[in-house]
Amino acid sequence: IVRIFSLNCWGIHYLSKHCSQRYAMIGDMLCKEEHDIVLLQEVWSEKDYLFLKKKLACSHPHSHYFKSGVIGSGLAIFSKPRIHDTFLYRYSLNGYPYMAHHGDWFGGKAVGMAVFKLGSLIANVYVTHLHAEYCREKDSYLPHRVVQAWELQQFICHTSAGADVVILGGDLNMHPQDLGSRLLRSYTGLRDSYLETAKFDGCENGMTLIANNPFINKRELSPFENGIRIDYILFKGSSKTEIYCDSMSTTKGSVPDHPFPYSDHEALTSELRLESHTPPEIGRDTQSKDQDSALVDIVTEARTEVKVGLHWAERMRYTAARTGVMGLALLFLELAIAAVPWLALGAEQPFPRTSFYLLAALCFAILLITSLLYIFYTMELKSLQGAEDQMRLAVGSLQEKLRGFPLAQPHKAMRRPPEGQEPSAFDPVE
Amino acid sequence: IVRIFSLNCWGIHYLSKHCSQRYAMIGDMLCKEEHDIVLLQEVWSEKDYLFLKKKLACSHPHSHYFKSGVIGSGLAIFSKPRIHDTFLYRYSLNGYPYMAHHGDWFGGKAVGMAVFKLGSLIANVYVTHLHAEYCREKDSYLPHRVVQAWELQQFICHTSAGADVVILGGDLNMHPQDLGSRLLRSYTGLRDSYLETAKFDGCENGMTLIANNPFINKRELSPFENGIRIDYILFKGSSKTEIYCDSMSTTKGSVPDHPFPYSDHEALTSELRLESHTPPEIGRDTQSKDQDSALVDIVTEARTEVKVGLHWAERMRYTAARTGVMGLALLFLELAIAAVPWLALGAEQPFPRTSFYLLAALCFAILLITSLLYIFYTMELKSLQGAEDQMRLAVGSLQEKLRGFPLAQPHKAMRRPPEGQEPSAFDPVE
Repeated sequence: IVRIFSLNCWGIHYLSKHCSQRYAMIGDMLCKEEHDIVLLQEVWSEKDYLFLKKKLACSHPHSHYFKSGVIGSGLAIFSKPRIHDTFLYRYSLNGYPYMAHHGDWFGGKAVGMAVFKLGSLIANVYVTHLHAEYCREKDSYLPHRVVQAWELQQFICHTSAGADVVILGGDLNMHPQDLGSRLLRSYTGLRDSYLETAKFDGCENGMTLIANNPFINKRELSPFENGIRIDYILFKGSSKTEIYCDSMSTTKGSVPDHPFPYSDHEALTSELRLESHTPPEIGRDTQSKDQDSALVDIVTEARTEVKVGLHWAERMRYTAARTGVMGLALLFLELAIAAVPWLALGAEQPFPRTSFYLLAALCFAILLITSLLYIFYTMELKSLQGAEDQMRLAVGSLQEKLRGFPLAQPHKAMRRPPEGQEPSAFDPVE
Repeated sequence: IVRIFSLNCWGIHYLSKHCSQRYAMIGDMLCKEEHDIVLLQEVWSEKDYLFLKKKLACSHPHSHYFKSGVIGSGLAIFSKPRIHDTFLYRYSLNGYPYMAHHGDWFGGKAVGMAVFKLGSLIANVYVTHLHAEYCREKDSYLPHRVVQAWELQQFICHTSAGADVVILGGDLNMHPQDLGSRLLRSYTGLRDSYLETAKFDGCENGMTLIANNPFINKRELSPFENGIRIDYILFKGSSKTEIYCDSMSTTKGSVPDHPFPYSDHEALTSELRLESHTPPEIGRDTQSKDQDSALVDIVTEARTEVKVGLHWAERMRYTAARTGVMGLALLFLELAIAAVPWLALGAEQPFPRTSFYLLAALCFAILLITSLLYIFYTMELKSLQGAEDQMRLAVGSLQEKLRGFPLAQPHKAMRRPPEGQEPSAFDPVE
């Protein structure tokens, strides 16, 4: 039996209400509940991820945070079993950068994949968060969301051929009968826990965005007065494995002993029972020890190279920021110089006009260019960090294999040093 | 036996020499040689793709052009067997937009995948083009290229689990012993045709960028005076299939009866012999007819939705372009008005200075913003078109299956209407 948890954390600092308190509540709950695999969305701040990582170090020793876009993908996985491999696919379309108040573009929405071994079975677990729907009647993002659902489907189909178990969790921002949902389910053959479960405990109709949640503006839900179902845990087996959903539950808009719920979305928990048909066979682990240790060397070298790039990008971003600040300072200085005679009501021209406007234009140009550059370098940094993370994971996995440890069992005692906390440079062999 | 062809076409109009003549030569040669699968890179202009498509309609009835980035990925596949599915993965890093003279960023480099059925075998064919190396001693793009190689490796590993045959062709812009090449080969287990071939006919050391090519600047090759090997055809089999490379050849810097070669890169041809171990088993085609026809409906609906978005993006891009042109016209008008008194040597102030500078600043701001928007909408259009193409392909594949046609045989007689030529709107059922 595998217990899967999924929650959209609504983790926008300064905008989401009670953000830090809610993360503390989520951490406590996850620590107590000890789900096997926890899929989180909208963990926008890496600090919050690191906070949860520390808190869940005992209950969920393995974790991965997917980086992408300007802000990040917001996707995080915590698990009891080891994560063997991860892969991120960035959707090619994701809203508009100038629709800053909707913010989706800056998040760099993507689908993250993690490969687990559950006993002898290979499980591909996907977590994703599609573009939000802001207005159902006049949904200008629908083509974007459909393309995202299409790419999600493609990604799952093409990457899951070798998997015995496929699980997808996340906030799809689509109703069960929406085009994207149907596209996804019919192509991949994924089944909906809510529809398949033997036992259900939660909101009416399995809704995950409900009117009873204090963070929800009821008017925004209309015409769906009671709520909508847009978060899912989907699953499928393979020729080798049957999967049954024994029970499923959602939170119900409030948490006992707390003044507010975990998030504006409800959390989902599914208990999946795996039944293996055929005896376990040797999977992908056909590489020899020599090959593996050569691989460790190559990946380590690659990591070093990536870190060099990372430092360069960091430096460039710093330079851009510094230049931008200088431009801003120059602008203020100019305004101050111009303001002094004006305040003194000097009748004569305070400043040669032409140079005043030219200087102001220069300052604005500097500010604009440096901000664009800053955004760009941030995106570059995210991608470099993401690749670096995955490489470290791969090295860890290979080294473990070389040491001959059993890979599949989640040893609680075997606490490894927390990974990914410090991207401190030039430590090629971790 | 499968014959694979790969060539970097160097198709930059106005910059590459003899571009159109070379495409005509390439078309003639491909038509005559009739390779099974043709993998082209740097086909930057969609017009050239459509030119080749028309020319190769008889010899290679199936084709796909991968769209991405501002300009496009430049990747194209032509084939005799049917293309069953395609998938594009955009590299997360790809140079810098302000390094416009290097141009890689605008190309939106990616790896394209196409799924073929060769007899009873499923073949995943990948085509890619990694970021160029402009200076080997001080290669500031190395981290980018390493990340690209890493993502390429991940993509191939994760998507090829269900394939019996894996083939990768393209311009990797890496020497055989470069870090990225080693990373790629050791992770995926792909083997190099040049090293494995029984018979070789081509340039010394299998070089694909040679000093004898008239388009090559010899100084840029130094310190490798004779040339370098950066284009590859790699392959691997599976537990079900063995692959042998019977022969391999490259062009040698000139083409008989023509004044110049096909490209600045040499073309590669590999003859791969597939040997199947086990009797063919039923692959993925386990879906029922009802499911398939439901799928056709859903995909058709999705295509319509995508087309709506496509039209919208086209309109928005048009608006941006029009506004930009208006801004430009306004700027010229202002300059003209200002220039008249200046030319007439009028001593008095020709134009109120403040409003002159403000108006000029406004024009520049309009120009800048509309150009950024234009670029953005172009990217959006590419992605939408790409998704639309893949959906059409999928619908075609499903419909063919429903009609009960044999899927695997490349019927020359069975010429289907050329696909993808007109993205003319609102024809949901093709």
